[in-house]
Amino acid sequence: MSEAKRFRVTLAYDGTDFHGWQRQPELRTVQGELEYALHGVFGTEVTVNGAGRTDAGVHARGQVASFSASTTLPNHALRPLVGRACPKDMRIRSIDEAAPDFHARHTAVARRYAYRLLDEPDVLYERMAWHPLRRKHPDLARLDAAVQPLLGDHDCTAFQATGSTPVDPECRILHAGWRRWEGGLMFEVEADHFLYHMVRKLVGTALHAGDTKDPAGEFAAVLTSRDRARSGPMAPSRGLCLEAVKYEGEEA
Amino acid sequence: MSEAKRFRVTLAYDGTDFHGWQRQPELRTVQGELEYALHGVFGTEVTVNGAGRTDAGVHARGQVASFSASTTLPNHALRPLVGRACPKDMRIRSIDEAAPDFHARHTAVARRYAYRLLDEPDVLYERMAWHPLRRKHPDLARLDAAVQPLLGDHDCTAFQATGSTPVDPECRILHAGWRRWEGGLMFEVEADHFLYHMVRKLVGTALHAGDTKDPAGEFAAVLTSRDRARSGPMAPSRGLCLEAVKYEGEEA
Repeated sequence: MSEAKRFRVTLAYDGTDFHGWQRQPELRTVQGELEYALHGVFGTEVTVNGAGRTDAGVHARGQVASFSASTTLPNHALRPLVGRACPKDMRIRSIDEAAPDFHARHTAVARRYAYRLLDEPDVLYERMAWHPLRRKHPDLARLDAAVQPLLGDHDCTAFQATGSTPVDPECRILHAGWRRWEGGLMFEVEADHFLYHMVRKLVGTALHAGDTKDPAGEFAAVLTSRDRARSGPMAPSRGLCLEAVKYEGEEA
Repeated sequence: MSEAKRFRVTLAYDGTDFHGWQRQPELRTVQGELEYALHGVFGTEVTVNGAGRTDAGVHARGQVASFSASTTLPNHALRPLVGRACPKDMRIRSIDEAAPDFHARHTAVARRYAYRLLDEPDVLYERMAWHPLRRKHPDLARLDAAVQPLLGDHDCTAFQATGSTPVDPECRILHAGWRRWEGGLMFEVEADHFLYHMVRKLVGTALHAGDTKDPAGEFAAVLTSRDRARSGPMAPSRGLCLEAVKYEGEEA
């Protein structure tokens, strides 16, 4: 038996037909499908750790996972082998050998998520974006103004889903902003870590705050209240995508 | 029995799971599904005419179809009723009463198509865009230069698929150009009519011409040759989308 090596895999998936990232008996999950593919390639059970435990219906372009495996296969053969063993709605972007202490979740320093809205319903984008039913179109400048109070270190309890396992509520928000994409408006946010359902709650809160007289003031009031009952409704999962994960000394 | 009214329906669809527009026994087609939905709403068989007979895998955002039906249902009730009767990968954008002589195909004055390329494979866009496997990235300026000779009136036989039914090969090209979209580069073309597989052949030819020293000269040489054997390979259907259909006196 050769010595176990540590690996880092970057992958993308269309989350529509997965019950989220995390392995669950009897359900189709990204972790489950990836471990099944790795088992096929290495001939032994492999457990992976993912940087972001995306919910059912949430997509990823730059999810990162780590695992250990004893193998004599050359590293360059792994991406094509594992890629072919994965289902069509997952894509292995890279598999590289990593430092022995590399852990996709614990050593990540930042995650970047995007949430896509649609200006109007669009069958081409319906799997990956959300069309909010509202009286008026959301306004880019007002949405962007609303989320500016997020930048910096904040207790983000207000945006944590009720009933979730407590994690450190103090998040360092490195970027938060709205811009246009092909189908409508898009929220981009980068932080050291996120609370459960946080990005989707941020989107719901921004949409609400954008409709008020003082978007930034309204949003800041929710943030500083640390009151979950004050944040807006959670936007649906299909608009959310884990775009990238950053590690010490790397660009995301 | 009330008198038959003429209707115009605008619809969008994700073409991935359809065997194209045209009704075919035993196969799932857009025309077939739309006629089935209309039958359910009107209680009688309805035949629709589509402005563009899109191929299997080709999408639409602005397909237009016409039909006649005797109905006492108010016009404003039709869109929601027919919409609910259609499968999830089709969307009825509007249904309006039209002039008695309105015919979606015969009275259309222009069609606009878009073809989307991907900079790299992307699971979120794979249903609606194509990632060409090439040694180097296509260049926007060179692709755009290549297609400029298309503007105006031309015999487009060079871009007609072999084996297709002959239609008037003289096309009036109203717009042809490349620009960036979210996932990569995009070809947009508008003409009074198109030949069979023409847009996909135009994309293949532009990609080839863009690699040569003189993109516009190379493309023009193919166009004026009227030789089907000289045009580039046909790009796959999934990148193609019928964006809009224009009628006399209307903006598309």
